[in-house]
Amino acid sequence: MTEANLQQDWETLCKERKQKQLDSIPKEWIIPAVPADVRNVQEIPYTCGLLSEKEIEITDTTDVELLLQKLSSAEWSSVEVTTAFTKRAIIAHQLTNCLTEIFIERALERAKACDDYLKANGKVIGPLHGLPISLKDQFCIKGLETIMGYAAWIGKPAESDCVLVQILNELGAVPFIRTNVPQTLYWGETLNNVFGRTVNPYNRYLTPGGSSGGEGALLAMRGSPLGVGTDIGGSVRIPSGFCGLYTLRPSYERLPYCGAVNSQEGQESISSVLGPMTNSLSGVKIFTKAIIDSKPWNKDPLAVRKEWSDREYALGDHGGTGAKLCFGMMWDNDVIKPHPYLRPAMEITKAALEAQGHTVIDWENYQHMEIFRVAESIFVADGLYDFRKACEESGEPFIQTCSPIDDPHAWTLEETLTTTLLGEIRPMSAWELWQLHKEKRALRKAQLDHWQATVKRTGTGRPIDAIISPAAPYTAVPHGLNTDYFYTTYTNAMDYATTVFPVTFVDSRLDQPDPPHEFHNDHDKAVYHLYDPEVFHGLPVGLQVIGRTLEEEGVIAMTEIVHSALQTLRKES
Amino acid sequence: MTEANLQQDWETLCKERKQKQLDSIPKEWIIPAVPADVRNVQEIPYTCGLLSEKEIEITDTTDVELLLQKLSSAEWSSVEVTTAFTKRAIIAHQLTNCLTEIFIERALERAKACDDYLKANGKVIGPLHGLPISLKDQFCIKGLETIMGYAAWIGKPAESDCVLVQILNELGAVPFIRTNVPQTLYWGETLNNVFGRTVNPYNRYLTPGGSSGGEGALLAMRGSPLGVGTDIGGSVRIPSGFCGLYTLRPSYERLPYCGAVNSQEGQESISSVLGPMTNSLSGVKIFTKAIIDSKPWNKDPLAVRKEWSDREYALGDHGGTGAKLCFGMMWDNDVIKPHPYLRPAMEITKAALEAQGHTVIDWENYQHMEIFRVAESIFVADGLYDFRKACEESGEPFIQTCSPIDDPHAWTLEETLTTTLLGEIRPMSAWELWQLHKEKRALRKAQLDHWQATVKRTGTGRPIDAIISPAAPYTAVPHGLNTDYFYTTYTNAMDYATTVFPVTFVDSRLDQPDPPHEFHNDHDKAVYHLYDPEVFHGLPVGLQVIGRTLEEEGVIAMTEIVHSALQTLRKES
Repeated sequence: MTEANLQQDWETLCKERKQKQLDSIPKEWIIPAVPADVRNVQEIPYTCGLLSEKEIEITDTTDVELLLQKLSSAEWSSVEVTTAFTKRAIIAHQLTNCLTEIFIERALERAKACDDYLKANGKVIGPLHGLPISLKDQFCIKGLETIMGYAAWIGKPAESDCVLVQILNELGAVPFIRTNVPQTLYWGETLNNVFGRTVNPYNRYLTPGGSSGGEGALLAMRGSPLGVGTDIGGSVRIPSGFCGLYTLRPSYERLPYCGAVNSQEGQESISSVLGPMTNSLSGVKIFTKAIIDSKPWNKDPLAVRKEWSDREYALGDHGGTGAKLCFGMMWDNDVIKPHPYLRPAMEITKAALEAQGHTVIDWENYQHMEIFRVAESIFVADGLYDFRKACEESGEPFIQTCSPIDDPHAWTLEETLTTTLLGEIRPMSAWELWQLHKEKRALRKAQLDHWQATVKRTGTGRPIDAIISPAAPYTAVPHGLNTDYFYTTYTNAMDYATTVFPVTFVDSRLDQPDPPHEFHNDHDKAVYHLYDPEVFHGLPVGLQVIGRTLEEEGVIAMTEIVHSALQTLRKES
Repeated sequence: MTEANLQQDWETLCKERKQKQLDSIPKEWIIPAVPADVRNVQEIPYTCGLLSEKEIEITDTTDVELLLQKLSSAEWSSVEVTTAFTKRAIIAHQLTNCLTEIFIERALERAKACDDYLKANGKVIGPLHGLPISLKDQFCIKGLETIMGYAAWIGKPAESDCVLVQILNELGAVPFIRTNVPQTLYWGETLNNVFGRTVNPYNRYLTPGGSSGGEGALLAMRGSPLGVGTDIGGSVRIPSGFCGLYTLRPSYERLPYCGAVNSQEGQESISSVLGPMTNSLSGVKIFTKAIIDSKPWNKDPLAVRKEWSDREYALGDHGGTGAKLCFGMMWDNDVIKPHPYLRPAMEITKAALEAQGHTVIDWENYQHMEIFRVAESIFVADGLYDFRKACEESGEPFIQTCSPIDDPHAWTLEETLTTTLLGEIRPMSAWELWQLHKEKRALRKAQLDHWQATVKRTGTGRPIDAIISPAAPYTAVPHGLNTDYFYTTYTNAMDYATTVFPVTFVDSRLDQPDPPHEFHNDHDKAVYHLYDPEVFHGLPVGLQVIGRTLEEEGVIAMTEIVHSALQTLRKES
């Protein structure tokens, strides 16, 4: 094959695959075209006429616990629920381009099997009975392709279900659709040569984030009650922040990744993890507990043999139920200062917690830039060989920017901090990688000791119970401009169990630009100048709760406390 | 410095350091020289006249639980107990060369502090109150050198205690002596240029194994009630097998390694772990539980946040207390067939278990050679750069064989299976290391599925509860001839929690050579021909109990069942 042929090939291949995707959508579910200048598309499901009233009621049921009750009591059948979410997913896709694999018939068959089981046995298959669950385009389902944003991966059906899908089936769930990702998975946006770009339903001029950006857009459209993404540097948290969702980035190997495809497979220095993304905090807990209760270590040799701990969920390591907690607020990570509208979200959260008798003190940053450098160095230890190789297999171009070729945003960033820090990228030796591991271990130890030392400042007799921080230094940004991931990568490098929860929305009438601060670096300065009250108005603002390594139970419980404090504050004001 | 000077330097450095060690032994504790041809030296502590009757009583108390009772009830003071073990350790050292750092005064000060605390407060400091504990020469103690078999590391006092030592102090223990290791830590024997060679107290012509061979020899001499070694390919289990001890190789990061020095630091593909070595199974459980109960994750960022599970210790994952278990016996790993005298040990164990109503079926080997190749490839991924670099720093020679220069054993092995498998050793790239990780993950998954599939053969409704296997294909062997580690490395690569326990002793009147079998490979053939009834008579034979990843509680409990079945069988016969 000549190079010209190769070039021809990948484009044809992608075009055909995209057409096949389009063909898998029932004609009668095609909605009238919405002009590109309609930026917020969240109302379209209500107005496009495709959904019945009941389908709207079902898909607007964001509380996963409630949805499961309706399903297990047979008030709603799984076929009804799966149909409703599939239809809304297809609407979402037409507006945001959030999907990859569409397999309606197969999903409905599975839903029917759940309904039949319940009818025949008078009991549910498992704790996720009948629940449609969307999956990022990494979680293999037997017989379906897992393209993961690479042209070369088109046309290769999976030989078996990945462990997560096996477990979801055992728990009674209905994996019903798969969602878009960026080529390589290493962008905080969602763009590839096969399925194209996913956009943000709050404002299609903006990115939903990435790499689990298909999930982000789909869930913000309520086209799924719960999705599963993955996170190696923020990939469930950035889209959750940008799309107003709840999520959990669990610790390495707490949830079973085995059998899912990935980029840079075998890179075990900072492991990618999987986590739930959803419109309700109940979904985060139910999913995480159900997966752990299924004893995933009997299917995935790397899954941590640690049962769900009710003691830890009851905050046994944090003074017990009802104890007054002390949080550390990371107002600024000293790498990139958050945009002005993130400060009100942090202030509201602080006030809400204090109103419940908790304490919020300042988190003192320590060695963040060193952690950032080591993490980013690990991510390119192969000199980008893995990414280039996957692209070369089809001849498709290696994507160098997520900025649109036509109509890019006027603002640009000359060079990211990562680029400056890393300098020339070249393949490392195994021994050099080991030296990075040594640095990372030392940084983790220093960070642990630093956290433990906060015991002197909390007044609780314990170190701070968790850190609260932004999920990114901004909300959703124009395509191509999500350039900094360190608010999230910090916890991947330290392996801290971390949630994201939505707090508020940007109100650019109130959230005026700050006067320029003493910039941490050029990237920080550039991010400062990115703020534009017109572009950012109305976007969701999410924050992280950062707990300790393997403390999923505790961090979920603490997020519930923060969430409930915010609800109380809102009711009272 | 010229090369000649460098050469001069390391030898002088080592000679002076060895002399300093000798000088740290009180003159009155020097025992009369024992001729080299006295091979078994285990009786010397009773006959050399250094130990009082009470000191013999104390040091012969091999049951750690009982020793701790005597200490916590103040029946024996920690100063008495520490003195007795120190004296016996010094005797052991003069006979086997098992020690590195000797710090008698400091240890006794610590013991006195424990006694004073108990007197003043009427309660113990912690669950290991007053117990002297020996440490492999990796566990840093503030102000003392940690030489770890490298001339270049002489004269560098540690700035702080490693996490293990911190925790031992908090638990009331008395770290009292440190023990010898091989240069690089990658030998299953114990020889370095600083402190020389450690020999086996059962037969000084033989190796005690390694790399925790100093602990092995010391404990077989009862010069310590409990020691801590490390294990990346069998390093606590080989010396335990060769010296008749109990040990546990826990899963990666279950026990805190942070702050201990190591070779190939940063190699995280197959992690070295630390484990207790002792003359009683009670010691294994008490140590492991006490360390885990101390919540090591608050000091070591890599330590797994998993509490000691009483449910798992009560065999909750194996049918519960009193359930009938099913073990898989690995009679031969199809890489190197065990020496004939290992078969009776396995047969006795099978009979003992069956007498208690348990079942023992054959373990079916699967992909062992592939696992072996991947593990050994990982260990040399840096092309041996780390080892050579540490040697070059002082100019000391990189040790190429553990065979004695004078008087080597007549039998030799031309080329080990590892050498054949690996071919030319060269530094790998990070990306190549990632490919090994992928292979290892796939092998772990295949092995897990293979284990789960035994459910069809057990009759218990569960897969086999544990594997029982030799710890090595032989007992202690002549110096330089411990050439195969795969019975142990198998579980490092798979990260299985594994114990070693002593079963019997070689009786060469009964354990006659087998007729030659169909050899698995040349190495297997060579090991077959190594058997010599005269050399091997009377040596302890140990076996492994191999459990699942992060199943320390379960594997200890199952080892107790095996141990108790063997005791019952012995009583009855």
